Parts: sequence; structure tokens; C-alpha cells
Amino acid sequence: MSVNNKRPNSPGKQKGNPGRKIKPKSTRYFKHHKPSGSSAKGAAKKNSEPKPVMRIMFLGGLNEIGKNITLFECCNDIFILDCGMAFPDGDLLGVDLVIPDFSYIIENADRIKGIVITHGHEDHIGGLPFLLSKVKFPVYGTPLTIGLIENKLKEFNLNNEVDLNVVNAGDVVKLGCMKAELIHVNHSIPDSVGVAIHSPAGIVVHTGDFKIDCTPVDGGMINLSRFGELGNKGVLALLADSTNAERPGYTPTEQTVRASFERLFARAEKKRIIIATFASNISRIQQIVYCAEKSGRKVAFSGRSMINYVTVAKELGYIDIKDETVIDIDMIRRYSPEKLVLVTTGTQGEPMSALSRMAYSDHRKVEVGFGDFIIISANPIPGNEKAVSNVVNELLKKGCEVVHESMYEVHVSGHACREELKIIHGLVKPKFFIPVHGEQKHLRKHAELALDMGMEHKNIFIGDIGNVVELNDSYLKQLPSIQAGKVLVDGLGVGDVGSIVLRDRKHLGQDGILIIVATLDTENGNVISGPDIVSRGFVYVRESEDLFDDVRSNVSDILYDCAYEDVHDWTTIKNRVKDGVSKLIYDRTHRTPMILPIIMDV
Amino acid sequence: MSVNNKRPNSPGKQKGNPGRKIKPKSTRYFKHHKPSGSSAKGAAKKNSEPKPVMRIMFLGGLNEIGKNITLFECCNDIFILDCGMAFPDGDLLGVDLVIPDFSYIIENADRIKGIVITHGHEDHIGGLPFLLSKVKFPVYGTPLTIGLIENKLKEFNLNNEVDLNVVNAGDVVKLGCMKAELIHVNHSIPDSVGVAIHSPAGIVVHTGDFKIDCTPVDGGMINLSRFGELGNKGVLALLADSTNAERPGYTPTEQTVRASFERLFARAEKKRIIIATFASNISRIQQIVYCAEKSGRKVAFSGRSMINYVTVAKELGYIDIKDETVIDIDMIRRYSPEKLVLVTTGTQGEPMSALSRMAYSDHRKVEVGFGDFIIISANPIPGNEKAVSNVVNELLKKGCEVVHESMYEVHVSGHACREELKIIHGLVKPKFFIPVHGEQKHLRKHAELALDMGMEHKNIFIGDIGNVVELNDSYLKQLPSIQAGKVLVDGLGVGDVGSIVLRDRKHLGQDGILIIVATLDTENGNVISGPDIVSRGFVYVRESEDLFDDVRSNVSDILYDCAYEDVHDWTTIKNRVKDGVSKLIYDRTHRTPMILPIIMDV
Repeated sequence: MSVNNKRPNSPGKQKGNPGRKIKPKSTRYFKHHKPSGSSAKGAAKKNSEPKPVMRIMFLGGLNEIGKNITLFECCNDIFILDCGMAFPDGDLLGVDLVIPDFSYIIENADRIKGIVITHGHEDHIGGLPFLLSKVKFPVYGTPLTIGLIENKLKEFNLNNEVDLNVVNAGDVVKLGCMKAELIHVNHSIPDSVGVAIHSPAGIVVHTGDFKIDCTPVDGGMINLSRFGELGNKGVLALLADSTNAERPGYTPTEQTVRASFERLFARAEKKRIIIATFASNISRIQQIVYCAEKSGRKVAFSGRSMINYVTVAKELGYIDIKDETVIDIDMIRRYSPEKLVLVTTGTQGEPMSALSRMAYSDHRKVEVGFGDFIIISANPIPGNEKAVSNVVNELLKKGCEVVHESMYEVHVSGHACREELKIIHGLVKPKFFIPVHGEQKHLRKHAELALDMGMEHKNIFIGDIGNVVELNDSYLKQLPSIQAGKVLVDGLGVGDVGSIVLRDRKHLGQDGILIIVATLDTENGNVISGPDIVSRGFVYVRESEDLFDDVRSNVSDILYDCAYEDVHDWTTIKNRVKDGVSKLIYDRTHRTPMILPIIMDV
Repeated sequence: MSVNNKRPNSPGKQKGNPGRKIKPKSTRYFKHHKPSGSSAKGAAKKNSEPKPVMRIMFLGGLNEIGKNITLFECCNDIFILDCGMAFPDGDLLGVDLVIPDFSYIIENADRIKGIVITHGHEDHIGGLPFLLSKVKFPVYGTPLTIGLIENKLKEFNLNNEVDLNVVNAGDVVKLGCMKAELIHVNHSIPDSVGVAIHSPAGIVVHTGDFKIDCTPVDGGMINLSRFGELGNKGVLALLADSTNAERPGYTPTEQTVRASFERLFARAEKKRIIIATFASNISRIQQIVYCAEKSGRKVAFSGRSMINYVTVAKELGYIDIKDETVIDIDMIRRYSPEKLVLVTTGTQGEPMSALSRMAYSDHRKVEVGFGDFIIISANPIPGNEKAVSNVVNELLKKGCEVVHESMYEVHVSGHACREELKIIHGLVKPKFFIPVHGEQKHLRKHAELALDMGMEHKNIFIGDIGNVVELNDSYLKQLPSIQAGKVLVDGLGVGDVGSIVLRDRKHLGQDGILIIVATLDTENGNVISGPDIVSRGFVYVRESEDLFDDVRSNVSDILYDCAYEDVHDWTTIKNRVKDGVSKLIYDRTHRTPMILPIIMDV
């Protein structure tokens, strides 16, 4: 089968385009679907020679913030873009983190040519160790990204087993018939890139996480001209970051934070300064360091992830800090408050983070009070508002001065707002548009923006995880979905916490448990020990002795009746006990603890 | 004891001041504290004749949003201002609501002259049934407020036992030696008042919840002139609403919402309109009704509390709605979408609310989809952002159009922002200031505002619940605290869920439980039944059989060792089992379920 490459927007017309060399392969389509080439209805009808198509498969990042992972397939080759994790919602009780369902990748491992990572945030790299512990692919990323991945793989003892490849913005990674060209973008971590995928089906652009910062702290302005060049050549589809698609205007430059820090450093005067920020926000940390060095303060870092990120960034030259500026957190007692800046984790009110520990007097090395000037240089991620507010209140009660409101401009987002998104849309001029990285409301708003820019409704695809779209220069259509979902990680267990366990956790957490134990005589069903009642998380037992006495006698009656009626089927006995006790408890307390009868026999 | 009434700002100078008649009483101070009159050090030093003092006691509303309740004491008389409840924070697992600790009130019931309620919101009336079921006092409030209280007391079968008194803004309630003058204010429910307390110690002003709305939908503008008159007479202390003390500028008038609704009604065209709002926001509902009547739409109300509030407000004439406008929710099928407006609860994403049920296809009577135009006319209360966001996303996925952002002005706050607070401070010109109704960050910001207005630092008191302050025209000082706190209500139980139960619920909810049951021979400690392992909320059992086998054999070994070593002390046996199993489980899973050994004997 030959590949029809005569397309109006063919990338073949560009000179020096890294994605040019097309190796037609025999058409082998992925397992779950009908081939849409020669035997498919849509494309084949119009043209007897099937056009090459690209398929895009979403395993994460749609209808959610986090665990971004997308698969691109062309002429039977696949590559993976990003492999993130997500933090659990409040209803995923006890779950540590959430990773994508990798089933499709594992089943199709032989066709996967590699993984390209756009930047070093957890929602883009956090799933890697879990995937790479099952199946190995070469990984490509910019120096800081690869440095952070390496660090992460070490924790999983995988660092020597994985083929890590450092590439730079402007470089092209060959992935079977496709080539991924890395394009420099601005974001809240240095060395971030978007990707232009040059394929036999055409060029597809994925922005990755990005913003347009004309005066960034590091690495220079986003390579808008390259997005424009690609647009002029003709782009089949654009996939773009929707995180801030609801926000009008522009995200301010990272430099605005510098000005705020300088004002606040002056206002702090004789106080110790403590700044909480995201550990991965190297540019922010760089600005804090500049301000500290300018005002003659030493910098101490607090929080495991903060120290990890700073160490990697410093080793790789992404943070400019004098050796004499940094002091160990253990050394802070040797310096007077006005000579110190502490940079810490905990912007989200996480209970185990350094800032929370300080607020609740639970930090082993730092005690806060009237002499502290605290800046929270981040906004709460939706869902964390209350936790952050609680930490602020505690710090204030201790007498600290706390700067946390948006009015002080101590934080700017790393994601493009509506006007920036319009610029990218206007430059890339894609035929098709797929909003990515966002909840439904973000994807919708981003789609509306594309409509406002003149795109046709039918050329926009709002998807969900598991969705597969097939496209070439004449159509975009949805194919049957592939397996996708949330895999929950709790401790060492990956995927062993499911809906039943979560339902039980929720029930236990809301109402507690009442356990009824009795030992019966196997012969005649007479009670020979118990019934005993044990409760946890239900009521304070000492104050509810009457209730417990009544439960015990109620159970005794039920067991006696069972023996008398010759009921020896344990399921029946247990159900009778459960129903009887549930009713009694509800009537008396209007509560519904989990009732767990345990009957033993001798 | 005579009362020294010669104060520079004496309210005695005003004519027709309702608080004038002072009946000196024999000094009987409240139980927990030394008297600060003749025998107290502070006041007595300067002046041999003791001045009358006022004491203000806070049982709620400081360092929290909700459960507002304040006690005012003068010359041995006490009255209560408001008696609210709070909704539980996320860490109060399974708790339905939170009420104040009423111990102090119950102990001092004989001195309490009554309860004055500023308005009919839950955080001001929700605690009343719990208090009044223990001890009875006359209750005073404006017509709508009393109507709502009556409704609430019916649910507790208390409506015929309580002395409810309807008063109006401008009226004065006599409470022993004190008089409470009700002053009309604007808020998000009609018939809201602030209170001026005229006492032998001076005038104290409490704003209640308020905003300044020069063009409100109901009841007219806040009586600013009365606040000004009181200020001119001399006010000892101001207690003012701090909810919006962090927000600059002014809260917009409720009328702005009307304009937005009219625009959105036009935009909705042929669609059914569904508007979620707070059930208590009668003014908002009134505006929806006006828009509906103007556009020829019928109105159906959904949600139990919505129907309750509307019924009371309609009966008392607080809502102007034509009989033919209202239809029952069961009738909506008879009308085409463009002839309908549904007004519903659920602005906070509460799982059981009408809007959530619609979003998750769980509403018995309303199914939503492409034909629906949904407006969420409220902002998320801190802590509810994620839940609201989830509901919005679900509605969007169903094809609904959803308006929820602040940019559409579909909601305005009911609380005063900074510029409004300044107006009240400027009019009332108090000697002392106590910010109330807010978390620490709000109280602090409000105190800063008072400092900016020229108040002296020493004249501002930032308090906490349980605090008692004593004041007259020469001083304000803190006395030892009284008992105060959170009483948790779970089902029918009031106060029977405490820290141990909550700790267990948290543990169970996060990690689940592993129960180990064995029956031992009383004589020799040999195992005669079990050990059996039962787990809930820990791991999916069928996939963890190996682990459970290992736990079972581990427990058998421990019990065998105990029998062999002649250990018959059950606490020791249980502890050994617990420790052994905990270690095994942690090593294998890195999880820490609750381990509960139950040993029975025969």
C-alpha cells in the first residue's frame, strides 16, 4: 500500500523541515478498531488511494487537571507525549496519587517509539516511573526535564534501566514515521517546550503547558515565530492548553513578581522572611534568591521536594545562586531574622508540608511568631482554598505578618489566558482544534474562543479520556474509544484500591463501624461466647453504655431465635443481626454506622 | 452600690433615648471571675465609686464563619444576640452541623433576659432549637426572622413552648437594665437589623451582618442616619461584621443582579432557565420572579429549604409573586421550555441538593440537557469550590449552557466591603472596636482598617470564642475566659461525637480497618476458633489473598507463642497481635489500616 502524500498543506513544501523523511510502512492498524484506510468508509469513498491518517489517543488530561498523556499514531507507529500523574480529589480517600490506565500502551508496546516530555512538572512526568517499571521506551526531554526525571527514577531504582535522552528546544526527535520538533515556550518551570509533530498525515501542534512571557526570568520569550512559520506551512490540528481558558486578558510576566518581592522585602525590614512557593517554580525561586542577595540575606530551603528541585536546578545551571548565599536550615539560629529568607513548600496548605508544620507548631527546626514576614507566592489550586485559609489564620494567630492576597502580585500563573490563546490560534491557523489540559468548563471555553476566531464548529473536537480521533487534511472523526481511566496509588499498592474499597472508606469515615462478635456452638447454634460489641468512629462508648447494652441484648435475642428456629445458615444469621442492629441504631441515633457481624463457631 | 453615670459620652444627654432608665442592681457578678467592680483592681484604683461596666462574652463567630452568638451583660443582666449554627469543616467527618457550647448560658439562665436575633440566616438562628430545648427565654426578632424561627421550631416540636416576639426596625426591646434598639440594615435576606445596646455603661453598637445598599430590592436603604446619630451621642464600642474586610471597595447593589438576569433571560431565548441561589436570599428570588413574570415564564421551586423559605416569605408578604406565576415542580412537563424558570437550591455543590441531583441525573422530576440554560447565582463558600466546579462540569457535559463566573454579575455579596466598613466606623465613631464575624484573617484586616481610620491600637480587641471583655468609658480589658467551643451534631446525637470518634473516623476513612478475631480456650490459651481476618476499606480482598494468608499465619504464630509462654493477659495478647500485624501490613503495603484484634474466650 502506498501513501498518498499529495496534500494541499503538505509539510513537504517547507525547506529544512525536520519532519520531511516519510517512510511509508505497511498499514497495520491498532487492535481495537476497524482500519479506516482502504476498508474504511469515510476516506475511501472519495479517494481510492487512501490518505495517511493520524490518530490521537487521550489517556489523560481531558476533563481533568493533571495526568496529561496523549498518544500519536501514524502509519502504525506510536509515540507518547507526556506521562503525568494527578493528585487525588477529596473523595478518593486515603489515595496518595492517581496515574493513567496504561493498558493500551502495554498492549501496543511493540509499536511505541518513545516518550517525549514537554516539561518537568508532576502532571507531565509523575506517571513515568509507574509506566517504565512495566515497559521500557526511550524518553526524550530538555536538560532540566530529564534531570528531574532521572531524580524521580532513582526513587524507584529505575534510573539505570531507562534510556534517557537530552534534547533541546529546536531539536527534532525521530519517532518512527513521525518527528517531534521541540519548540521553546514559557511556563512556570524552565526548559518547557511545545511540540510540532511532523507526520505523513500533516503537522500537528501541541502547545504543552504554556504562557506568552515577553520578559521571562529565564530562557527567553516563547518561540512565537516558529508557531507562525508552522502556521504558514499549514497545520492540520492544534492541541492547546486550556487551563486558563476562562480567564480574560493576559497572564502577567513573571517579572511582576520580582517588583512585588522587592517592595515586600523592604517592608519586612527587621523581620525574617519566609516565602512559600511551588518547589518546581525555579524562576520564582531565582527571583527570591536575587532579592535575598541584594538585601544581604541568606537563603535556607525547607521541604523535601524544594530541596530536590533546587539541587537538580543548581547542578544543571538553571538557578544562579552564590554558594555563600545558601545555608542549611539547621544553621538559621546563627543568623538574626533580618539576615534570613526561608524558602519553603506548603502553598496549598498540605498538612505535612513545611509551612503547615510551622503554622501548627509542628516543624522541628522552625518556630514562627511576631518576627516573621510570610509570603505565600502561589494561588490555591481549586479544592485547596480552605486548607490554605486555615494555615494563614494559624500563622496570623501566632503573630506573623502574612501576605497572601492576589492584590500584592506575589504570584502569576504559568498558563496562557484568553488573549494569549488567541495569539497561538492566530499564528498556528490549524484546520482542526482540540482543546486539552482542562476540565469540561475549560475545554468548552477554549472551544468557544476558537469559534470566536472563526473556526468552524465541526472542526473542533471536545474529547474525553479514552477517546480516539482520526484525522487528515480532509476530515476529523472519532473512532471507538480505548481503555482509559484512573489508577489509584495507595502506599505501595497500584490499582488495588477500587470503588468498593473507596465506598467502604467513605462509609467508615462518615459513620464509623460497629462490630458484633459471637461464638456459636456448631452443633446447636447456641451462643457460647459473646455477643460482644466493639465500635470505632461511631459514638463515644462510655457515654453510650445503655445503647450498647440494648444492642447486645437485641443480638442475643436474634441469635436465640435463630437457634430456636434451627437456622444454621450463617449468611441468614448475619443478615438478621445486621438488619436488627441497623434498625435499632437508626431509631435511637439517626445514624448509619457500618454494621459488621462476625460469627465464629466451635 | 451606686452607679456612676457621669461620663463624657453619656447617652443620658440624648432625648428620647430608649436606653435611659437605669435600674441599679445589687452587684452579682458571673460565676467564673472575680468581680471587677468595687473589689477589682483596675477600675477601682482610679475611682473610689465604681462605674457601671458592660461585659461582652463571645460564644461563637470569632475565628470562624458561622455560629454567631454574643452575650451582653450589664449590672448583672444578660441578653443573647443571635444563636447560630455552622456547617462542619471537611475534617469533621460525618458531622451534620456545629452549634455553640451553651454551658455558660445554661449555668446563668436565671440572669438571661432574652434573645435578640438580627436576621433569619442559619448562622444566626440555627442554634436556637438546640438552646431552647434546654432552657427557655423570650426571643425577639423582625417579622420574617420570627417567621423563619417559628418554622424551624416546628421541626423540633418547640413552637408552642417558646415566647416569640415580633418587633420591627426602630423598636426597642427592654432586657433588664439594657435596651436593644433595632436598626434597619441591608443584607442578603430582608428584615435584617443591627442593634444599638443602650446600657448603664454606655451605648454599644453591633452591626449584625450588613452591607450598604442605596437601591436595595426590598425594605429601603440601611438606616445610616441612625448610626450617625448614635455616633454623635457617643458610642462606647462598635462590633462589626468582618466577612468582607479583605475586599476593597464596595459591594454592588442587589439591583445589578437584576440587570444581569434580564440580559441572560433574553440570551436564553427558547431554553428552559434554571437558577440556583441560596434559599434564604428572598431578594434574589424576588428578582427572578420579576424577570419571569416580565418574560411570561412560570416559576417552579425545587429543594426543600427553597420551598420552606419561599412559603414563609410569601405568607408574610416579603415576596411579591402572582399566584398564577407559581407552578408545582410536578407540572413542569406541561409547559414548553421557554415558558419555565426553575429556582433551585444547590449553589454550593452539596451532593444532596436539587442542582447536584440534576447534574448527576439523580433528580426524580427534572432531567437536564441541551435545552437548559443554567445560572448559578452565588459564589462558592470557601471549601466548596471543587464541589461547585464538579457540578458545573457535569452540567456542561450534559449539554447545558451554564453561567457561573463572576464576570456575569449574577451574584453580589450580602456583606460590606472595606469602603462600606469605613463609612460605619466613621459614623459610629466608637471609643472601642471589636471586629466580629470572621476568621482571623478577616478580623485582622478589619482591625487594620480601624487603625487606618485613626483608632488607637489599644482600643481594638481581636478576640476568640470564650473571651470576655469588660468595658466602660475609661477602659476595655479582657477577663478570664468562659467555656466555649464546638458542639457537634450527628443525627440525633448532640455532643456525643468528640475528638476520639473523629480521629477514628479519619483513620478508618483514610486507611480502612483490619479485624482479627480468634476464640481462645480460657484454660490454656489455645486457639479453638480462628484466627479470622475481616477487612473493610483496606484492599480489595480477592486480589490480596496471599497477604491475608500471611496475616493469618502470623497471628496464629503470635497466639501460639502467647499460649506457650503462658501469657494470658488479654491486653498483652491483643497488643502483640496488633504490633505484629501492623508491621507485616506496613512492610508489604506501606499502609496503616486500623488493626483491631478481638479475642473471645470459651
